Amino acid sequence: MTKEPILDIAQLAHIEIYSPKLEESVAFFKNILGMDESYRHGNSVYMRAYEDHYHNTLIITENDEAGLGHIGWRATSPQALERRVAAIEKAGYGIGWIEGDIGHGRAYQFTSPDGHKMEILWDVEYYNAPDDQKTPLLNRPQRRPSRGVPVRRLDHVNVLAKETKRNVDFLEEVLGFKVRERILAEDNSDIAAWLSVSNLVHDIAIMGDALGEEGRLHHICYWYGYPQHLSDVADLLIESGYVIEAGPGKHGVTQAAFLYVVEPGGNRVELFGDPGYQIFDPSWKTIEWKGKDLEKAIIWHGSNLPQEFFKYGTPVRAEKLVKN
Amino acid sequence: MTKEPILDIAQLAHIEIYSPKLEESVAFFKNILGMDESYRHGNSVYMRAYEDHYHNTLIITENDEAGLGHIGWRATSPQALERRVAAIEKAGYGIGWIEGDIGHGRAYQFTSPDGHKMEILWDVEYYNAPDDQKTPLLNRPQRRPSRGVPVRRLDHVNVLAKETKRNVDFLEEVLGFKVRERILAEDNSDIAAWLSVSNLVHDIAIMGDALGEEGRLHHICYWYGYPQHLSDVADLLIESGYVIEAGPGKHGVTQAAFLYVVEPGGNRVELFGDPGYQIFDPSWKTIEWKGKDLEKAIIWHGSNLPQEFFKYGTPVRAEKLVKN
Amino acid sequence: MTKEPILDIAQLAHIEIYSPKLEESVAFFKNILGMDESYRHGNSVYMRAYEDHYHNTLIITENDEAGLGHIGWRATSPQALERRVAAIEKAGYGIGWIEGDIGHGRAYQFTSPDGHKMEILWDVEYYNAPDDQKTPLLNRPQRRPSRGVPVRRLDHVNVLAKETKRNVDFLEEVLGFKVRERILAEDNSDIAAWLSVSNLVHDIAIMGDALGEEGRLHHICYWYGYPQHLSDVADLLIESGYVIEAGPGKHGVTQAAFLYVVEPGGNRVELFGDPGYQIFDPSWKTIEWKGKDLEKAIIWHGSNLPQEFFKYGTPVRAEKLVKN
Amino acid sequence: MTKEPILDIAQLAHIEIYSPKLEESVAFFKNILGMDESYRHGNSVYMRAYEDHYHNTLIITENDEAGLGHIGWRATSPQALERRVAAIEKAGYGIGWIEGDIGHGRAYQFTSPDGHKMEILWDVEYYNAPDDQKTPLLNRPQRRPSRGVPVRRLDHVNVLAKETKRNVDFLEEVLGFKVRERILAEDNSDIAAWLSVSNLVHDIAIMGDALGEEGRLHHICYWYGYPQHLSDVADLLIESGYVIEAGPGKHGVTQAAFLYVVEPGGNRVELFGDPGYQIFDPSWKTIEWKGKDLEKAIIWHGSNLPQEFFKYGTPVRAEKLVKN
Repeated sequence: MTKEPILDIAQLAHIEIYSPKLEESVAFFKNILGMDESYRHGNSVYMRAYEDHYHNTLIITENDEAGLGHIGWRATSPQALERRVAAIEKAGYGIGWIEGDIGHGRAYQFTSPDGHKMEILWDVEYYNAPDDQKTPLLNRPQRRPSRGVPVRRLDHVNVLAKETKRNVDFLEEVLGFKVRERILAEDNSDIAAWLSVSNLVHDIAIMGDALGEEGRLHHICYWYGYPQHLSDVADLLIESGYVIEAGPGKHGVTQAAFLYVVEPGGNRVELFGDPGYQIFDPSWKTIEWKGKDLEKAIIWHGSNLPQEFFKYGTPVRAEKLVKN
Repeated sequence: MTKEPILDIAQLAHIEIYSPKLEESVAFFKNILGMDESYRHGNSVYMRAYEDHYHNTLIITENDEAGLGHIGWRATSPQALERRVAAIEKAGYGIGWIEGDIGHGRAYQFTSPDGHKMEILWDVEYYNAPDDQKTPLLNRPQRRPSRGVPVRRLDHVNVLAKETKRNVDFLEEVLGFKVRERILAEDNSDIAAWLSVSNLVHDIAIMGDALGEEGRLHHICYWYGYPQHLSDVADLLIESGYVIEAGPGKHGVTQAAFLYVVEPGGNRVELFGDPGYQIFDPSWKTIEWKGKDLEKAIIWHGSNLPQEFFKYGTPVRAEKLVKN
Repeated sequence: MTKEPILDIAQLAHIEIYSPKLEESVAFFKNILGMDESYRHGNSVYMRAYEDHYHNTLIITENDEAGLGHIGWRATSPQALERRVAAIEKAGYGIGWIEGDIGHGRAYQFTSPDGHKMEILWDVEYYNAPDDQKTPLLNRPQRRPSRGVPVRRLDHVNVLAKETKRNVDFLEEVLGFKVRERILAEDNSDIAAWLSVSNLVHDIAIMGDALGEEGRLHHICYWYGYPQHLSDVADLLIESGYVIEAGPGKHGVTQAAFLYVVEPGGNRVELFGDPGYQIFDPSWKTIEWKGKDLEKAIIWHGSNLPQEFFKYGTPVRAEKLVKN
Repeated sequence: MTKEPILDIAQLAHIEIYSPKLEESVAFFKNILGMDESYRHGNSVYMRAYEDHYHNTLIITENDEAGLGHIGWRATSPQALERRVAAIEKAGYGIGWIEGDIGHGRAYQFTSPDGHKMEILWDVEYYNAPDDQKTPLLNRPQRRPSRGVPVRRLDHVNVLAKETKRNVDFLEEVLGFKVRERILAEDNSDIAAWLSVSNLVHDIAIMGDALGEEGRLHHICYWYGYPQHLSDVADLLIESGYVIEAGPGKHGVTQAAFLYVVEPGGNRVELFGDPGYQIFDPSWKTIEWKGKDLEKAIIWHGSNLPQEFFKYGTPVRAEKLVKN
């Protein structure tokens, strides 16, 4: 009989990104994406979207260069947390426990094989809207902001890795992620993979780093769910002087309606403009794209992706970008 | 330490409904909702939507009166199936194993306390599109039909129960469903509840039967995900002579963009026209609606629900409908 | 040979409404509908939507009670203006020339037979955006605001009349409007009519006043063009404490996706959420709705209209509203 | 005092295109775009969209090579027709009267300076739906088809010209078109122009022919009005094996949400997926795009246009396409 699936991680809880231009980054998420500042502490600003139920889902920390701070995963139970910690330690990627951070309790820190810093936790603090932000829509933690084109919630993170497969295997075997879709080279080696613990097609994606770097961030993604909002936010971005890297368009992989823009700190942000599709099947067979199918995997229709899309990540490696 | 959650059921796999007008029911799902007939066997027609990955998700069986045949749940693993069967048997609601049906292997049959017939299973048959229906969008099991306004996939089922709480407790305790939202009477007794095992707000809802009947069906629901399609299908329904019961409109509960129509066999069908919201939080606190909040729970905006919505179910109890 | 059509009026240029709560009315149009204040003068505030090309399209004037100030029409040419003035004078409804107002030059004032004040003009002042509001989208007079859910442009006005036909005839014969759609009583008398000089189905509608009053306003309408924005603004309205009178829903007449809300001053405002349909046919045969067809004329699908919709206008006649 | 505007043409009434693959062209418009065949006569098939009120708006005529048959304009009155005929004759571009064609009465034929065949007419035949296609939506001439992703109505035509300005001047001075937007070269010579007689931004566009040919067709356009339908039809096109040339995307010029596809006969077809914007201002100042503004004129956001877009027209000049 097959081994039972690991169901110990519930969701992507938060992401920390680094920005060399803290206030400009905060202004972007606040004024364009309608997010709110929950808290400031040291060099970090804690933010959330209006349908994020936790205290924060984005932490922007001032830093010399852009990039990924860390990724926070929430376990399905306190017991599940302990099990995953044991597995991570056994796999040799553990760092250790921290007492907690703004918005959550103790967390166990570790890295992916490629060095992306992650943590796993159980205890969270919920956002509690002030009275003038409470809404009669009780399943919404606060009113829809009337500022910018407000994103609804954190969706996923996409990281670059020197070696895709090693990191995919780690997520799959140690953390219990399922590989939902995969792009393969002609020799069937992994170029990119989309993995999830939830019904989303991906909570995290891993793509081979064209510059051969380790531990870089490709993008973070917030969710609209409605295609019109990509068109609305495109107006706002263009007219505010931001440069849209690509989109609106539709990927074949994940069926996501996408728009990519680089926030002022240098990190790429994706805005997800429709529901895509979801996976409920517990024995889902990984979708594999290769060869002639690849073109439609990358773009199903609409906007193309520029070459830069496949090389640019954070921290930016400008000298290599030019060479390649 | 808290008890760990039961994560043994993965999804709603299929629903069987009864129809006294088999061919007219099939024509409705085929021509208006763009579904395909997968198979016919005896008095039953097996159907699926174009993004349903299994052989079938809807079985329409000819019968004297409309109503629910059975609800099929898929376990998260073979082991999970065995655990749930043991729990159901222990709870005293088991019927027994069947060898399987068109599209799936052995399944364990049981009832809800109210008598709704259900089954749980692991082995499934996937739909395999003929060559002229294959699509370069590899995560889609077949091409989008060019007939009607095609629904994408099965979403949920909503049943009426003589006693809401007893059935909610059964789903929660024996099967591992989580109660996501709930409508309460002034005395805090349950009027209705929305439960899920997935990230959807509900895979099943249970509402008190205003006629005091047992085991009735309120509606089945297929999913579009895009609001425009409710408007498109409304045109098609009206111009084809079908009567829309309510919608397009938006519920507060589940944040669903809805449209309700009664199919020719008499069963109510909901079409879900946007992504609603989703729940990833493993310690989700049930949303409770009561008193002055109820109006917004039922209708957030748009179309109202007629009185009939709260009484009509299948089998129809026409003599009681009049009295009430 | 048939008489040639009068093509002397080009468009609805602006509307003045009265409000007993000037600042609250201005705040509504500004914060919810994203409109900008162009100017203040005396008791009047001049406003415009972001795709209105003229200096202003809405004037809100402080007044004891709500209602229509006046309606401004723009002629197709200076010569056309003179011709219409002559025709109005001949018909006996003329008031006389004014020197102009904020945003336009000399205008000829007159009334409808029911007493609705109107004016016709040629010279207009265009809006000239300050540098920080200019957009690379050169056919858009300013950037899309990032405040509220911004309407795009003025669409139409709908007035109540003691006697529908007399006013329709005036618009048709003296001003050159074409009757695009019409609701008839069983005896074929006019209940309501939708008229236009443009390709829109209506620049103005006239509906019989259920309270038997003269010269009242039913609503003014601003245009989104995209259905999603009705859903977005509904969120904003509800969560800001405004009461939606009806919608989102879709009328049969004009095929408009509608939402109605009463602004703080008491005037009803419609938001038009899709393109509806347009009329290019120069020999368009008026669409006539009566008897059994009426239900679909009023609501094609979605939200119903409450009884109040057919009686409430401004100035409000509260004592009569109760009686009826 | 300024000269009065010519208001003698009301609309684009129909377009004839040539196809070397008549049946495949008809199947494309029928099965993908949901259009209906109204009539067949000789080598021509007459078609219409479901909200086209006339007998036909598209004539596909079998021919050795693809291209434009003719463009039919409808006058605003019988008198207007006579006036325009006199003006055309005076300008030296007249051909002469024909008795009429399927769907309309006598028409006066002429050419643009570049040789595009056109006609102007008054008498038209309306489409009269058979009983099983009548709809309770009385302003819609027939039911929305449940086949393909049905377009609503004819929108505009775009032709290539050896010399843009000469043709623009003809349309402006002789026919009364207004130049709504214009793309200029550095020396301010006309590269392309968008002209209309209606409130649409363009009923016709003229673009310089990159191959230096005369009288070619760039594309014809049918209208959806809703962005979702571009996404829906993109699915249908791709999965049916058609190649989308560009889109969905959004032009700056006209603010059109576009999708371009070449029909089997070789002619480019645009599908217009939103309301764009409209012009009601009778003294509209032509929008001029040049230099650094051009990029946003062509693509506001989304899909880029391939190089082929600027060269390919019908008849195809394959030998020149390669050379250029």
